[in-house]
Amino acid sequence: MDKTKKTIIVFSGELDKVMAAFVIANGAAAMGDEVTMFFTFWGLNALRKPEKIKVQKGFLQAMFGWMMPRGAARLGISNMNFGGMGAVMMKMVMKQRNVDSLPEMIQTAREQGIKMIACTMSMDVMGITEEELIDGLELAGVATYLSEADEANVNLFI
Amino acid sequence: MDKTKKTIIVFSGELDKVMAAFVIANGAAAMGDEVTMFFTFWGLNALRKPEKIKVQKGFLQAMFGWMMPRGAARLGISNMNFGGMGAVMMKMVMKQRNVDSLPEMIQTAREQGIKMIACTMSMDVMGITEEELIDGLELAGVATYLSEADEANVNLFI
Amino acid sequence: MDKTKKTIIVFSGELDKVMAAFVIANGAAAMGDEVTMFFTFWGLNALRKPEKIKVQKGFLQAMFGWMMPRGAARLGISNMNFGGMGAVMMKMVMKQRNVDSLPEMIQTAREQGIKMIACTMSMDVMGITEEELIDGLELAGVATYLSEADEANVNLFI
Repeated sequence: MDKTKKTIIVFSGELDKVMAAFVIANGAAAMGDEVTMFFTFWGLNALRKPEKIKVQKGFLQAMFGWMMPRGAARLGISNMNFGGMGAVMMKMVMKQRNVDSLPEMIQTAREQGIKMIACTMSMDVMGITEEELIDGLELAGVATYLSEADEANVNLFI
Repeated sequence: MDKTKKTIIVFSGELDKVMAAFVIANGAAAMGDEVTMFFTFWGLNALRKPEKIKVQKGFLQAMFGWMMPRGAARLGISNMNFGGMGAVMMKMVMKQRNVDSLPEMIQTAREQGIKMIACTMSMDVMGITEEELIDGLELAGVATYLSEADEANVNLFI
Repeated sequence: MDKTKKTIIVFSGELDKVMAAFVIANGAAAMGDEVTMFFTFWGLNALRKPEKIKVQKGFLQAMFGWMMPRGAARLGISNMNFGGMGAVMMKMVMKQRNVDSLPEMIQTAREQGIKMIACTMSMDVMGITEEELIDGLELAGVATYLSEADEANVNLFI
């Protein structure tokens, strides 16, 4: 076990929860820790490219892809979202308070060398393909997550 | 601390979250880890028998019991459930992709010897009795969870 | 790493989730563990004073403050809340079953010397000031959380 390694499973796809994950991850990386984030289910939405990507899909996968938010700038919040108004309010407050936006936090994570893994089983189920996700990710399954977690001293599920 | 032990608290009762718990648990068990799952609050619904069991209950407990889903096959999903349609869609996609269903994952967990504990305090509050839960569970409280967690190197709350 | 230290991030603000956090925290403290709880985002609502406090705020912060529940006695539950009816039912059942109420659990946590930290970044974003929170809290950021987590053997995100 390595006191300087952390892993975070990002299962949730709401702005506030994904932000919490990146605040912890970036904080740990800034303190010299190695950090691995494993994006699964709704968490994958935070990693989608904002533009529509043409991909051949089955009907159900296309439905999921069409209904889920495309990328970090479009996520709702987990409470008081009111059809997106809550997320807009939260982003305005964050700007006022000079808190980085989620896309900026993701950029920082990459610059700090945080390993971001997209869960292949979830991609398969949700019908999200590699072309639809931002660059610089690793693609892997639960075995990879477990190996990373075995080397870390803090493992969170968000 | 034992590098080969994991614990997962299953608090949430949605199909997608409970599946995530079992994917991690079964993955770890397949890699030779000892795994303990502690089911509490809504997570208990995943362990209910599908059939209606006649049990004497107080009014409020009966209400909870009547409104909560009976078993792993009836859970909704945490996002885009649309009154159960989302869960149906997700199950169809999983079948297409040859991902095990949740009841199959639970079966695998038992075959792999994963210890499944139902939280007695939650059972008491939610009015869920031992007869209403599937067989092969242990019944215990938070002290048992904490002892298990003290021996594990990865402890998640889902 | 210290086998007798635990940390819990309380991100969620629903009665059932905050209760789960305190049941684990109080259980661990009763077994002799050192426990740190880090309240962030909606979790801060559990620590608000029940009375309205006059504080000068920006418009958006005032909106958040006005729409979020003031204190542990006013939280909804994460499932089947039905505009608060579910929370009322759950509190009635807990009373019947002699389970402590959330305000009592918070009181116990303080008597057991559990360290409760309010996340300063979340307070800033949500517009929650120190005067609006119950007494006896520490105010700190993610770096403090990470230092605490590094010393603990169980770290949960709720």
